[in-house]
Amino acid sequence: MTTDRPTLFLIPVELSDTPPADVLPARNFEVLRGVKHFIVENVRSARRFLRRCDKQIDIDSLTFFTLDEHTQSADIDAMLRPMEEGHDMGVISEAGCPAIADPGADAVALAQRRGYNVSPLVGPSSILLSLMASGFNGQSFAFNGYLPIAPAERMARLKELYRRAMREDQSQIFIETPYRNSRLIADIVNALPADALLCVAADITGPSQTIRTMPVAKWKGAELAKTPTIFLIYHP
Amino acid sequence: MTTDRPTLFLIPVELSDTPPADVLPARNFEVLRGVKHFIVENVRSARRFLRRCDKQIDIDSLTFFTLDEHTQSADIDAMLRPMEEGHDMGVISEAGCPAIADPGADAVALAQRRGYNVSPLVGPSSILLSLMASGFNGQSFAFNGYLPIAPAERMARLKELYRRAMREDQSQIFIETPYRNSRLIADIVNALPADALLCVAADITGPSQTIRTMPVAKWKGAELAKTPTIFLIYHP
Repeated sequence: MTTDRPTLFLIPVELSDTPPADVLPARNFEVLRGVKHFIVENVRSARRFLRRCDKQIDIDSLTFFTLDEHTQSADIDAMLRPMEEGHDMGVISEAGCPAIADPGADAVALAQRRGYNVSPLVGPSSILLSLMASGFNGQSFAFNGYLPIAPAERMARLKELYRRAMREDQSQIFIETPYRNSRLIADIVNALPADALLCVAADITGPSQTIRTMPVAKWKGAELAKTPTIFLIYHP
Repeated sequence: MTTDRPTLFLIPVELSDTPPADVLPARNFEVLRGVKHFIVENVRSARRFLRRCDKQIDIDSLTFFTLDEHTQSADIDAMLRPMEEGHDMGVISEAGCPAIADPGADAVALAQRRGYNVSPLVGPSSILLSLMASGFNGQSFAFNGYLPIAPAERMARLKELYRRAMREDQSQIFIETPYRNSRLIADIVNALPADALLCVAADITGPSQTIRTMPVAKWKGAELAKTPTIFLIYHP
């Protein structure tokens, strides 16, 4: 992985209130120490993350560029300037793996167009960890982001995802805003057959981690905590 | 994550010729030391993995059950007996994250039916790492395993995946047996429009890691090494 071209490192962050060494390999901390220019979703929390990883790190010597949902494409172009000058850079998201469900993907896409090295570091992905622990098909799976909120569209989408799980033998994964978790369980119980399988994975890697697969019928009336949760459906 | 019920730990393995600490968090090594009963795809390579992680480990005191594509469901039932007796167990696959594309998922499904804890540990997933580095949509993506081999079905499948990438804005991921990598590039060049985007991610986390996104037209004539490779398509 050594090269004379600069590298854009994709640096994962803990998902929950977990010591960094529980979920990040030692190599990530080494890489961090060598990078001076970062593209981050939020500067305050990126600084805190770096300090958790290495108390010795000289935060004031580092450059941070903010890349969030308000950033214009032209600004991303300017953010990669340190790479033009031969410096490695790092992308840090708010939680989990950068560029999976955050604006970091736009910086990666531009780095790819420019022909820079892109090097993803290992870290926790609630999508992948919940799939591993669900017992569902890992040879074919899809992550679908959020469901629609409007009731009719939401029911239609749930039925559509279940049909795809059946017809294509493909595990279907989605998420919800935590305060709507219990409501989503009720919607799934209404939309899917009683013997469909539902896995609910809450607070992945955190102190209250719970990953439970049961037939839909058994989830009836379940109340979930307002923690980040992943939902997976599959046919038995 | 502490509990009085036994836990089935899902223990990832390095993907390539990489030191374990480069891709596995320190916590994984701690968990390994506490587990005495393992479900593995291959006993020889699982023993070697444990020795790479911890030279002090007393391999002869450990119990291994083989779970591969020849295993009958009834045998999986017997493998979980140590959990009935209150012992934690570990699932180790040949490479990467267990239960994602290997028989370990059957053991996880059974542990879920029995109501045991299932705890996935963080490790390298070539699917997720290549998606991060592709610059493609990480809010919606699907892993589709292998493509069909018969030429007509293969072309039809590639066109179908590209249509889905377009219509649903969903990144499409698939794999190939390494000796057919270059052939697959040629098929993709024939099947997809010149401006479709193809990311080719080879030897992820390994010494020759290369992750490159380019329009399909630019991949024409490309020869790939016979290393494990992930293919991702997306529309620009």
